[in-house]
Amino acid sequence: MPIALVLEEKNKLALREIDLPDDVGPGDVRIAVDTVGVCGSDVHYYTHGKIGPFVVNAPMVLGHEAAGIVTELGEGVSHLAVGDRVCMEPGIPNMASKATKLGVYNVDPDVRFWATPPVHGCLTPSVVHPAAFTYKLPENVTFAEGAMVEPFAIGMQAATRARIKPGDVALVTGAGPIGIMVALAALAGGCSKVYISDLVDEKLGVAANYGNIHPINVTKDDAAEVVRAGTSGWGADVVFECAGAAKSVQTALEAVAPAGCVVWVGMPVDPVPLDIVLAQSKEIRMETVFRYANMYDRAIELLASGKVDLKPLISATFAFSDSVKAFDRAVEARPTDVKIQINMQDA
Amino acid sequence: MPIALVLEEKNKLALREIDLPDDVGPGDVRIAVDTVGVCGSDVHYYTHGKIGPFVVNAPMVLGHEAAGIVTELGEGVSHLAVGDRVCMEPGIPNMASKATKLGVYNVDPDVRFWATPPVHGCLTPSVVHPAAFTYKLPENVTFAEGAMVEPFAIGMQAATRARIKPGDVALVTGAGPIGIMVALAALAGGCSKVYISDLVDEKLGVAANYGNIHPINVTKDDAAEVVRAGTSGWGADVVFECAGAAKSVQTALEAVAPAGCVVWVGMPVDPVPLDIVLAQSKEIRMETVFRYANMYDRAIELLASGKVDLKPLISATFAFSDSVKAFDRAVEARPTDVKIQINMQDA
Amino acid sequence: MPIALVLEEKNKLALREIDLPDDVGPGDVRIAVDTVGVCGSDVHYYTHGKIGPFVVNAPMVLGHEAAGIVTELGEGVSHLAVGDRVCMEPGIPNMASKATKLGVYNVDPDVRFWATPPVHGCLTPSVVHPAAFTYKLPENVTFAEGAMVEPFAIGMQAATRARIKPGDVALVTGAGPIGIMVALAALAGGCSKVYISDLVDEKLGVAANYGNIHPINVTKDDAAEVVRAGTSGWGADVVFECAGAAKSVQTALEAVAPAGCVVWVGMPVDPVPLDIVLAQSKEIRMETVFRYANMYDRAIELLASGKVDLKPLISATFAFSDSVKAFDRAVEARPTDVKIQINMQDA
Amino acid sequence: MPIALVLEEKNKLALREIDLPDDVGPGDVRIAVDTVGVCGSDVHYYTHGKIGPFVVNAPMVLGHEAAGIVTELGEGVSHLAVGDRVCMEPGIPNMASKATKLGVYNVDPDVRFWATPPVHGCLTPSVVHPAAFTYKLPENVTFAEGAMVEPFAIGMQAATRARIKPGDVALVTGAGPIGIMVALAALAGGCSKVYISDLVDEKLGVAANYGNIHPINVTKDDAAEVVRAGTSGWGADVVFECAGAAKSVQTALEAVAPAGCVVWVGMPVDPVPLDIVLAQSKEIRMETVFRYANMYDRAIELLASGKVDLKPLISATFAFSDSVKAFDRAVEARPTDVKIQINMQDA
Repeated sequence: MPIALVLEEKNKLALREIDLPDDVGPGDVRIAVDTVGVCGSDVHYYTHGKIGPFVVNAPMVLGHEAAGIVTELGEGVSHLAVGDRVCMEPGIPNMASKATKLGVYNVDPDVRFWATPPVHGCLTPSVVHPAAFTYKLPENVTFAEGAMVEPFAIGMQAATRARIKPGDVALVTGAGPIGIMVALAALAGGCSKVYISDLVDEKLGVAANYGNIHPINVTKDDAAEVVRAGTSGWGADVVFECAGAAKSVQTALEAVAPAGCVVWVGMPVDPVPLDIVLAQSKEIRMETVFRYANMYDRAIELLASGKVDLKPLISATFAFSDSVKAFDRAVEARPTDVKIQINMQDA
Repeated sequence: MPIALVLEEKNKLALREIDLPDDVGPGDVRIAVDTVGVCGSDVHYYTHGKIGPFVVNAPMVLGHEAAGIVTELGEGVSHLAVGDRVCMEPGIPNMASKATKLGVYNVDPDVRFWATPPVHGCLTPSVVHPAAFTYKLPENVTFAEGAMVEPFAIGMQAATRARIKPGDVALVTGAGPIGIMVALAALAGGCSKVYISDLVDEKLGVAANYGNIHPINVTKDDAAEVVRAGTSGWGADVVFECAGAAKSVQTALEAVAPAGCVVWVGMPVDPVPLDIVLAQSKEIRMETVFRYANMYDRAIELLASGKVDLKPLISATFAFSDSVKAFDRAVEARPTDVKIQINMQDA
Repeated sequence: MPIALVLEEKNKLALREIDLPDDVGPGDVRIAVDTVGVCGSDVHYYTHGKIGPFVVNAPMVLGHEAAGIVTELGEGVSHLAVGDRVCMEPGIPNMASKATKLGVYNVDPDVRFWATPPVHGCLTPSVVHPAAFTYKLPENVTFAEGAMVEPFAIGMQAATRARIKPGDVALVTGAGPIGIMVALAALAGGCSKVYISDLVDEKLGVAANYGNIHPINVTKDDAAEVVRAGTSGWGADVVFECAGAAKSVQTALEAVAPAGCVVWVGMPVDPVPLDIVLAQSKEIRMETVFRYANMYDRAIELLASGKVDLKPLISATFAFSDSVKAFDRAVEARPTDVKIQINMQDA
Repeated sequence: MPIALVLEEKNKLALREIDLPDDVGPGDVRIAVDTVGVCGSDVHYYTHGKIGPFVVNAPMVLGHEAAGIVTELGEGVSHLAVGDRVCMEPGIPNMASKATKLGVYNVDPDVRFWATPPVHGCLTPSVVHPAAFTYKLPENVTFAEGAMVEPFAIGMQAATRARIKPGDVALVTGAGPIGIMVALAALAGGCSKVYISDLVDEKLGVAANYGNIHPINVTKDDAAEVVRAGTSGWGADVVFECAGAAKSVQTALEAVAPAGCVVWVGMPVDPVPLDIVLAQSKEIRMETVFRYANMYDRAIELLASGKVDLKPLISATFAFSDSVKAFDRAVEARPTDVKIQINMQDA
């Protein structure tokens, strides 16, 4: 039996043997996992045992941000070869569903997603995955970067749905890991500059190490005012709300330009009061984001081109044998930590 | 001095002489007004003396839904002629503003709009208006229909921003005048069928007199459930929220299909709790509507073609001399009343 | 062995027994075919033995426009039941391809399409088909109409890609079967009126039997001039070029409005001179159409609603035993013939 | 009388006094011109005396790419001040036209454009211009860069109309000045990498000095093949055809990906054979470009941010007194020359 990082129940992790499905069916590939990132959702299952309606009722392997090497090909797989360095998209839809046929497979209700109960994740040395959701990494993209494609894909989805026009000015509210991913995707995706707002200077500092990202500490300045001052009073063409707080929801509506766009990325725990009349007075468009679809290819292209550099966001890397420590570091939530990764070389 | 229907102050209307600007400048036309519709906003100024930040601090002529005959051309006007039957778009932007250059002149903050303080309206026998916002009526479109173009343009704006695809199924929440206009625009604009929900059977009955409009009385049925049942569980491709109530805002999110669109047309008095996570789980798009831009031409085309028939929505017509009675009828808000009009022939 | 209408080779049809694949695999359904329409491509294979690169090198069953009744369900099929009346989308993509994941499965190079060599068609009493591409017909849509969904879906694809705005004015060049399908989809999809041009009065007459379709006989009138005259000189918001002739390609560019859209539906045999500078002077958008994707649901909705009535376009119906006669009638190409169908009841 | 660079007739330039309109009307500003770029169209009027239907029948001042300093404000101008450093958009539409109201003022047939007969250009020390088409330059954008905004705006228009998605791969055919502007706008506007093709190595070298621009010499390699090889066989998401040659038009169709977009930027002298069936087989979208609208603001933002650096493209700068020499250098068309500018300091 393979070894894996198993969430036994809330607050209880174990690196132990577990029985996992292992058949390489038609269209599948087997992958030796090299690197796995720790996501906020992994941590939340660890500390809370559930996320909304998804409850951990049985031991579950964690991990869904992964890169590795193809070791076996299922029948009919032609675009990959044994030895290919790859990263994996963790959500697998019903390929025959209406949503999938429409190209929005991320909103197919039947999606099976790694480390979302009851589906096991990938913190184990070897996984089987559909080749259609396995993407080859160019030579100049490392496994560590490959394992960053998953969170970056969320930023890409947000930037894509915003329909950025070249030279747009954006505001990102919230400088957590997702806020930073969104800011980088927005810049790579056509924005001339991105304002980013947060309460915590250390987080803003990580973001502002990148060019054309302008930090706003909202304990000192009003983000909407700063944005208007920087845009001749017009406002931000696009606001990406990534904080999920009532206050930043209001800021988004205040900061956005007439005919602009607000993308709701952050996930407020409860319904948030929304000033619809204010939104109407500018006739804005609002987009929402649910994970991503068709983003891996283009995310990898941006990493390979050097237009986006995610390496500075890898804050620490632990060995597989130290996986529990990796999670405990992630639980700490140090303000300058963006991504904790686990390297499977010692698996 | 011309005579006009003047709102002296809250609750006080008078048909009396008033001094009004009368110069026909370059690009202007003078129009003998034939028909004016009474809008909910006219009524609200009458009964409340204000709408949000717009306060009636001085006597103001009411009326902004109008049709008439061109009687004089200003310098440089070439697309209209004296004697042309026309209707008028009541909001005039700053033509040099950034919003106007972008084609979204409706969100230009400098728009001057008939019967929005401090700008006088058109309930007076003769008005001067920019030719660029004056539209010729085809022979088969009456003045009464011409005066309906303004409220219908709101429906058209909503239908246009929804980006309806041919055969889409829509839900309209709220069967008031705007809800019905939206439903008709949505059908003409490509929907195969439109569900419309309300609390009041009489209102639903007016809507359901049109083909392919399916009424839902929400005191008896759950609108989201009815819509899902009628769409193999998928939901409405587009929801037009026209009621402006917290409950229908939630219904909109529940009834919309994955990757669908909600258009916020109704104007809730206060911010409304919005379940952003629910919206995200379907990755919906949300659009807002502020009046209209570039809709008159196409609204008139739909009336002329017979694809949209607004005549059944004209509930009663009063003579100009009975304007106050017209407003008092409108204040009654009979559930089957959609539009009260005033005919200026006796002016 | 089942009986089928087999194209043995160019100009040689036979109603005879043939060995056909018959396994109902996971996700498949078996369907008793009721009605099959004869398409121009079927006829072209019959008379020419090939279409472009697709050559009939072995006997092939014809037919791809079909409706019938589900008689058997494969494993995992849940949205259909035995006895359901259905119509079938004839092209099956590789569900794991990049194009399919993007929602544009019609441009997947691996699509297998009924009656496109070497794939057999459906002119046989029973077929096996993926449930994901089999669509339930509402009670008020007949099998004959169900078999019309396929050609109508092409019109729907054209109308959808045009991104019609409510009230747009369109021109369709070419009043053949596809031109008429496009005209009806454009009207249902939001156009206020549609001009249609052709050389043959009988064809124009069939189209003009529908409301809001205005015929232009180009042997007498210049289509671009007629359109401009009917649009205050502006031009058509959308032109659907369905004739595939060099002259109508030029007409499309002349008739389209500034910032308008031309959809290239017709398939010219050879490259056609295109006046790119003329297109640029109006900064038009041009769309192309390849079959359809995700159109069946919405096409069926429009038939069920009564907004689109295809029944007048069924010119003649033959029994299965008279299939060869049906094809010979189609070869005649009578100007008032739009669609010849074959009823399988005597199969 | 002011001095100006006057095109007397074909092949005859003179720096001489000429009577020019000089009233600063409402909404206008007067600008002391600092820098003027020489455009290919200026050169073409010089060498041919006409461009298509636009014929130089009377002496005309050349120049339309300009930056300078505001020296006088007309009535009602509030967003600019005397002393502001600015650049000017050379085309002024009829602000009341249908096209302008729609936001596509570039396709208004009544546009008056600098140095397009019979309208004088700006190669003169002082010009009067509508403030609405005059844009303030940030401190870190030089006058020389400001005078580059005009040609860059064409690239921006092309990149905007392409609706680039973050990470798209593009091909630009033609490495002339416009091709390079388009390539830079495409990269800034979201592309991960841009292939650029040409016959001339020197031109490709200028482009390839920028990062993520990959040159293809079509005398040695097939551009479509190179692009497919670099995109796992998929093709370019966007092709910008900037060469205006029949061969590159065909290359565009061959290189573009399924469901991709071709933007026709180059202006072929005569209609070009277009393989519509090939375009259809991939169901591509095609966009055209006519100058630009609403691009100056966002072009300036990209220059100010440093995301786009146009300074390396300024090949030589001449004094106003040497304007004729500047034009003669431009006529030479050295392969490494991108932009020749004229500095007005000695005027």
